[in-house]
This record gives sequence, structure tokens and C-alpha cells, in this order.
Amino acid sequence: MEIRNVKSSDYYIISPLINEWWDGREMSNKLPKLFFDYFNNTSFIAEKDGEIVGFLIGFLSQSDTNVAYIHFVSVNPEFRKKQIGRRLYNAFFNSIKKNNRNVVRAVTSPVNKASIVYHTKMGFNIEKGDIEIDGVSVFSDYDGINQDRVLFVKKTN
Amino acid sequence: MEIRNVKSSDYYIISPLINEWWDGREMSNKLPKLFFDYFNNTSFIAEKDGEIVGFLIGFLSQSDTNVAYIHFVSVNPEFRKKQIGRRLYNAFFNSIKKNNRNVVRAVTSPVNKASIVYHTKMGFNIEKGDIEIDGVSVFSDYDGINQDRVLFVKKTN
Repeated sequence: MEIRNVKSSDYYIISPLINEWWDGREMSNKLPKLFFDYFNNTSFIAEKDGEIVGFLIGFLSQSDTNVAYIHFVSVNPEFRKKQIGRRLYNAFFNSIKKNNRNVVRAVTSPVNKASIVYHTKMGFNIEKGDIEIDGVSVFSDYDGINQDRVLFVKKTN
Repeated sequence: MEIRNVKSSDYYIISPLINEWWDGREMSNKLPKLFFDYFNNTSFIAEKDGEIVGFLIGFLSQSDTNVAYIHFVSVNPEFRKKQIGRRLYNAFFNSIKKNNRNVVRAVTSPVNKASIVYHTKMGFNIEKGDIEIDGVSVFSDYDGINQDRVLFVKKTN
């Protein structure tokens, strides 16, 4: 398996797959093409035998020169439990290290239990929000009305 | 009227207004909170007597060090025809000049005739797509199936 940087044309392969990889949740609208055009040096594709099996879209904060943000990560369900996610995160961590960043942020929906477990396993801490859902601290209405979010942060290096 | 940089908390004032400012089109989901957190130095608010009357969210490309991108611009309909949009664009152009960028890109939906007219008036060129709609060149399925887009580009400096 190969990890490489995202290129713009990957959008047209990945976008139609996203909802399927997310168990039918409408997720592709969270990932317009701009994310494949402007953050290529901190975004990565996992490819096996020429087929895209996972990807990570991340970028450097312009506002805080210590911080980087992971917007979206997904792995083809048929290729899970193979450390593909870990390799994508590590590629991202390496890319931000080159840019002298040592704080990584990410958010997820409280409903996405797998993501919460995964980020915790990867060493992310959960920030203290204003409510608790199933024992996890959550920021209510963080991304709009009824759009609660779990906020992750990890210090790298 | 005052133009200032965006801050994170502006999201909670602006997000509930967006669909209303866009004649009821569902647009707020194109603007998650991350756009108010990570690109503050190239994103701007227009305020009159302490009330937000317009905003521009833009960022620097990480992939191409000449390029900057305008993601979203909106002005309260009650405050249009007052050059607020122009002042927001000019604030953005100044901010990217400081970062040695001289190419600005933006996209819009073909249905948004006002945006097409406005960008043309502001000196943006329309890139040649694969189809034409009402005399305007368009990239079909650019942002996903049935998500056609008009692509704008402007050289500044």
C-alpha cells in the first residue's frame, strides 16, 4: 500500500464513494472540491494496487501558527483494521512537523462512536464542552443548531 | 461602517442569518465553523453600529503559493448597493498582497446570476468550462453530481 499526497482529480473518484463508506450518511457535502485543490501538501491518499482505499484531508491553520486541523478521514470499510488510518494520520503528523506545528485539532459528531474511540486511541484528548452524551463531553450546537460536536486536540512532537 | 478580521465567535451570529440573506437557499451547511477558526487573517466582517452586515471568508492556498481563494461572501440584503461587498473584497485583496499572492479564485453556481455579474464587474474572468448555461461557460458536475459551477479567476497587483 502506498501513501501519497492528494491531487485535485482525486475528488472525482472519492466524492461518489464517501456516503457509501459512511454507511449511507450524507457526508459528501462536507467535502466540496476546494478541499482537494488547496491543501494538497497536508492531505493524503492511501492506494492499493492503484485503487484509492482511504484518504485524509487536513490543513495548517492560518490563524495560529502552532495549529493544524484534520477535516475529514475515511477508509473503505473493506480495508479497515489494516492500519491504513494510522498511516494516513502519521503522514499528516509528519507533514505538519515539517511546518513546525505541534497541535492537531479535529471534530466529530457524538453519534460517531468509532471516531471517538479511534481518536482517543491515537492519543487525542477530548476538550471539555457544555454537555455530556454517553459519557463523552460535547459542545452543543457547535456547528449550527442541533449540530453537536466532540472536539479533539493532540500535541505532537 | 467598519471592516475587521473575522473571529471564531462571529460564526454564531452569522450562521443563523445565512439562509435568510440567500433568499432561503440552504447555504449555511457550506460554511461549517472551521472557516471561522482557521483563516481569520484573510477573512473579514463588515459591521455597522455594532451589527454584522456582511462578511467574506477567504484563505491562502497551501498548494500554490501564488493563489488565494474566496469561499463565501454575503451581504445583508437590506445593506446592498452600499459598496460593502467591494470593501470586503478590497480588504481581502490587501491581505493576500501582504502574503505575496496575485491570483484569486472563486466559484459560484450558474443559478447565481447576481454573483456572476458581480465578479465580472470586480474584474474576475470566467474560466472556460465544458458546457454553457445562459451564455456563461460552466464546469458541469464540478462540485459533485448536478453541482455545476462557474469558475472565476482574477490577477491582482
